[in-house]
Amino acid sequence: MSSTVNNSNRTVEVCFSPALIQLHDVTSSIVVVIDVLRATSSMCVAFANGVRSVVPVATVEESEAYRAKGFLVGAERNGEMIDGFDLGNSPFSYMDPRVKDKDIALSTTNGTQAIAAAKDAYMLVAGSFLNLDILCEWLLTQDKNVLLLCSGWKNSFNLEDTLFAGAVAEKLLPHFELNRMRDAVLASVHLYGLAKNDLNTFLEQSSHRKRLEKLHISKDIEYCLTLNQAPVIPVLVDGVLVKLTA
Amino acid sequence: MSSTVNNSNRTVEVCFSPALIQLHDVTSSIVVVIDVLRATSSMCVAFANGVRSVVPVATVEESEAYRAKGFLVGAERNGEMIDGFDLGNSPFSYMDPRVKDKDIALSTTNGTQAIAAAKDAYMLVAGSFLNLDILCEWLLTQDKNVLLLCSGWKNSFNLEDTLFAGAVAEKLLPHFELNRMRDAVLASVHLYGLAKNDLNTFLEQSSHRKRLEKLHISKDIEYCLTLNQAPVIPVLVDGVLVKLTA
Repeated sequence: MSSTVNNSNRTVEVCFSPALIQLHDVTSSIVVVIDVLRATSSMCVAFANGVRSVVPVATVEESEAYRAKGFLVGAERNGEMIDGFDLGNSPFSYMDPRVKDKDIALSTTNGTQAIAAAKDAYMLVAGSFLNLDILCEWLLTQDKNVLLLCSGWKNSFNLEDTLFAGAVAEKLLPHFELNRMRDAVLASVHLYGLAKNDLNTFLEQSSHRKRLEKLHISKDIEYCLTLNQAPVIPVLVDGVLVKLTA
Repeated sequence: MSSTVNNSNRTVEVCFSPALIQLHDVTSSIVVVIDVLRATSSMCVAFANGVRSVVPVATVEESEAYRAKGFLVGAERNGEMIDGFDLGNSPFSYMDPRVKDKDIALSTTNGTQAIAAAKDAYMLVAGSFLNLDILCEWLLTQDKNVLLLCSGWKNSFNLEDTLFAGAVAEKLLPHFELNRMRDAVLASVHLYGLAKNDLNTFLEQSSHRKRLEKLHISKDIEYCLTLNQAPVIPVLVDGVLVKLTA
């Protein structure tokens, strides 16, 4: 990697919902799509375990079509794996040695919607706590604006994606400018400051956490909130996520 | 006022932008429109000083039409009063004895847009730090869901409206339920917890604060961030704001 760029006027912004993307200029930005629980976390794990490509799809029906083309398919309904599919949406699914060198179609509602909303981005990458440091180090080397796009939950604000946006913004701020869209950045950084010593406890009352708790996947949640366990950067190329190479 | 309602299943939600209003069911909610700097603060001051009604309008041209009908008109462009208009957008404008018993057309971009977005509300009231306690006491007596609608800045998230939403939510939470839209409520309450000992300092880096600072109206800002100086509740009746009477 090249060294950190300094003295530039590049900006960092946070967008709390794909439904607000039109307020931002994505064409001049590297957009970091964030869906911590669990799509972008699972993507990072997949590439860290040798997956060749990940196609984000919105529906189980689309996944079926990819399966017919020879893809491994990951899908769930209401948090549970579906009969006949290869993988669930849990990050642990993507640690399976079977995934190495495979192409995967991953069904995700919010993550796929966020990727679609930012399709005109200068460049689109996926972020999660699992690739926090490598992602920030790479963003610091790029002389571009950064837009941190929280997938949210069906377009509504969510806490876990905001905390990750805050974690990234905190690392970028000494080297980036704030512009008139600064308030969402400041809020994210403040919230991450409150949460960072124990993300899991901070999120105990959050909506998606409560939703997933019912599905007994607290192991997934804990893993998705650990830092730097999958140090790779998924990048979108022609509608398909691949691993960014330096 | 009747006493606090308990044991109900009423919910409290926060919406960070008029552009996200469709995620909420406004028809079953009392919507609190929040535009702390400065529209809803000025409205509270106006009613505390005997104004009879306030029509929120979006453009200076609309204000002109109301002036022709005998209204006092308050308007600004870029934070400054316009020649030929009676009042600016500063809360101090509405402490003038001339406003007593008058009808006022108040030009405000973000506040008017938020009111329009929530027009199907069960009931719509205006909130600001200047009417915090009386507003919360009244909401506690109502057996209805509450939606705290931040006007933001041209549909983007802003901090000062979020802090006020957090101040209200903090007071309501012991008596209200959180639902699946809980994350924005939790974030607002956390941010208000960080800010409440010194709102002015907390907002030093915020976007609108910086915008208004350039206009040398820090006296307005300080006043808008003080609590309970205008203990009245503006309520929308047939498209016009009037003072709520018990």
